[in-house]
Amino acid sequence: MTTTATTARERMLLAKEASRAIGLLRDEQKRDALLGIANAIETAAREIVDANGEDLERGRVTGLSEALQDRLRLDESRVAALAAAVRDIAALPDPVGRVLDERTLANGVSLTKVSVPFGVVGSIYEARPNVTVDIAALALRSGNAVVLRGGSAAERTNAALVKAMRGALVEQGIDPEAIQTVDDFGRDGARELMQARGVVDVLVPRGSAQLIETVVTESSVPVIETGAGVVHIVLDESAPLDWARDIVVNAKIQRPSVCNAVETVLVIRDAAPRLVPPVVEALRAQGVTVHGDATVASLADGITPATDEDWATEYLSLDIAMRVVDDLDEALDHIRRYSTHHTESIITQDPAHAERFLAEVDSAVVMANASTRFTDGGEFGFGAEVGISTQKLHARGPMGLSELTSTKWLARGVGQVRV
Amino acid sequence: MTTTATTARERMLLAKEASRAIGLLRDEQKRDALLGIANAIETAAREIVDANGEDLERGRVTGLSEALQDRLRLDESRVAALAAAVRDIAALPDPVGRVLDERTLANGVSLTKVSVPFGVVGSIYEARPNVTVDIAALALRSGNAVVLRGGSAAERTNAALVKAMRGALVEQGIDPEAIQTVDDFGRDGARELMQARGVVDVLVPRGSAQLIETVVTESSVPVIETGAGVVHIVLDESAPLDWARDIVVNAKIQRPSVCNAVETVLVIRDAAPRLVPPVVEALRAQGVTVHGDATVASLADGITPATDEDWATEYLSLDIAMRVVDDLDEALDHIRRYSTHHTESIITQDPAHAERFLAEVDSAVVMANASTRFTDGGEFGFGAEVGISTQKLHARGPMGLSELTSTKWLARGVGQVRV
Repeated sequence: MTTTATTARERMLLAKEASRAIGLLRDEQKRDALLGIANAIETAAREIVDANGEDLERGRVTGLSEALQDRLRLDESRVAALAAAVRDIAALPDPVGRVLDERTLANGVSLTKVSVPFGVVGSIYEARPNVTVDIAALALRSGNAVVLRGGSAAERTNAALVKAMRGALVEQGIDPEAIQTVDDFGRDGARELMQARGVVDVLVPRGSAQLIETVVTESSVPVIETGAGVVHIVLDESAPLDWARDIVVNAKIQRPSVCNAVETVLVIRDAAPRLVPPVVEALRAQGVTVHGDATVASLADGITPATDEDWATEYLSLDIAMRVVDDLDEALDHIRRYSTHHTESIITQDPAHAERFLAEVDSAVVMANASTRFTDGGEFGFGAEVGISTQKLHARGPMGLSELTSTKWLARGVGQVRV
Repeated sequence: MTTTATTARERMLLAKEASRAIGLLRDEQKRDALLGIANAIETAAREIVDANGEDLERGRVTGLSEALQDRLRLDESRVAALAAAVRDIAALPDPVGRVLDERTLANGVSLTKVSVPFGVVGSIYEARPNVTVDIAALALRSGNAVVLRGGSAAERTNAALVKAMRGALVEQGIDPEAIQTVDDFGRDGARELMQARGVVDVLVPRGSAQLIETVVTESSVPVIETGAGVVHIVLDESAPLDWARDIVVNAKIQRPSVCNAVETVLVIRDAAPRLVPPVVEALRAQGVTVHGDATVASLADGITPATDEDWATEYLSLDIAMRVVDDLDEALDHIRRYSTHHTESIITQDPAHAERFLAEVDSAVVMANASTRFTDGGEFGFGAEVGISTQKLHARGPMGLSELTSTKWLARGVGQVRV
């Protein structure tokens, strides 16, 4: 089911038009639509994997990095996982129509604040076909149409996925224009999407810090910034060694390539002789390169000297920065300077220090005595995740379905006028 | 109490620095700070009125319109009203520290989502000294620092107000850098404010459609768009004449210059012969010019012919557009095309029509049988109003104190790691 629209702008207008009916669908209609999409993706698995093969071949020729090729790659089992994710999203409760506030004015006018779909959700992301399916499914589950821009490296894969999803909508009697891609318009597609204020209601960029920066800077559509994570763990004077070691190692090595992995460990000076040697040893035993300051280097073997650049780096690899600070104040100063406001955790047995850290650190998720890897929609029990917002407007931290809704006030009267 | 900062950027950084302590103030400290500000404004009334006189004199010389001069003008009683508004805001409940969600993960990690201040709130507005005081008071009440850009026409008035407010903070032992103006940097001040992403957390433009458009287009700081109102009332076939006439007249003439005043009336064709003549007569009796289509002109006297431009116009004056449409579908089409998504109301006794209108109109506030003039933070019982958001991200409709807060997730564990 391909569209007749010949420009990116036309496709977005078709999405806007389709969003009206999508927004009025009942819970079970949206659920059925998603189950249909899951089936259609499975049915089209061969076609999707073939299209992916063409993208991969082109990637090899054009010198796409191994890491990006791996992210891009779909085989039959990865396609099955995409379909399974759609079924999981289908099973989530409808986020639309929740009553968020109710009040009756003295004159009898009744006011109800309800959750409503945004209308059209846009997303700009890079070479990750799973995002194509996730965002489309999350958008539809919350009653939105969607405009996708997944990058030219994944253009054929995304086209095959979008074709399958649109076909499923047709079978369900739903306007297929609710799912649009603008991949085939290259950079112009992205530019049109960023300037489609009044047509696209919200834009979620996902990908590199540079991509997000570009979208935030160039978009006139309201953006939800999802984010880079220069994530910190502070080891307080009272930190038990086992918590400190286990949490730092878990937060670094369980999945180093993601935004909630720790990048910098700050050790309070009085605890450094006790904690630095065993924590460094545990990290090195897992193959982690520790970039440390002079004090860290004086306490442990095999330290790579850290520069100021290390404190600002989101490694996303088996590297970690470690610095000794005089006290909690200096740790908080360091975090204020270098944090990307994603997640920070303190390991401590001092309740006053824990509560001060929780109150003063200005990040989406602030923890005491837990691994930063818990900052995740799935872990938080949201079922699925649009992304992790590092901005303060609208949504902060892991975003579930309800973050893809807006609100509307309904007023019901019997002829009241304002006096 | 003047600042030592010599650039707009430096002032914003001082506001950011000050926001840390402001965000941690207890409820009663913030309340006392606002009461101190109210007193300081009254004490400085003479100085403020004198400064305002200088602005007005300059306005007369430079040809500022009478309407803008009137908005700009402060006398002793208007200054007293400013102080009274600050006391009203002081009396509102603290929007910070509310627990919005709580959950305990299977592994025992406890999660709490709490409301927190944004940090630094910026506002760009035009020649309205009351906004200077309102926004500063609302920002402080919600634990935020504030950066104000009120326009060169009100520069001296705003400087006097900011000086009084900052002096009150010093007396309360609060860092006065929490209140900043960048008026004296002219357009550069506004530009710096719009580009202060990472320093200013949210920017609220208030004023003309053109000003808001500029801020939305040029700002990399997240913006809450407050809005223009091309507001519609639909008179359904079943609309009682008295409701129709009273609500249209009230919505037009009670305060024509504001965004929630009605601009266009759409009359369903079958009701037109019954409703158009008396509604037009009632409007004309109040001095309203009715810009009508041919059908309206055939049914009532004294109609000015309407053009397409009228449907898109926010008159903000004693003018109104009136059009006859075939049915509710055509009314909804018209609204989709011309509405600015602020407020629309239907007058009807048909519950199915009312509910369809409430469900399908995509505006911040959708009404049945009530005057559009009720879209107002004060009327809604919010106590004070930051503005009326016409966007869908973060806030929609009248914004109270809670819309000046963000959220933060707090996680408390005992050494848990992700498996």
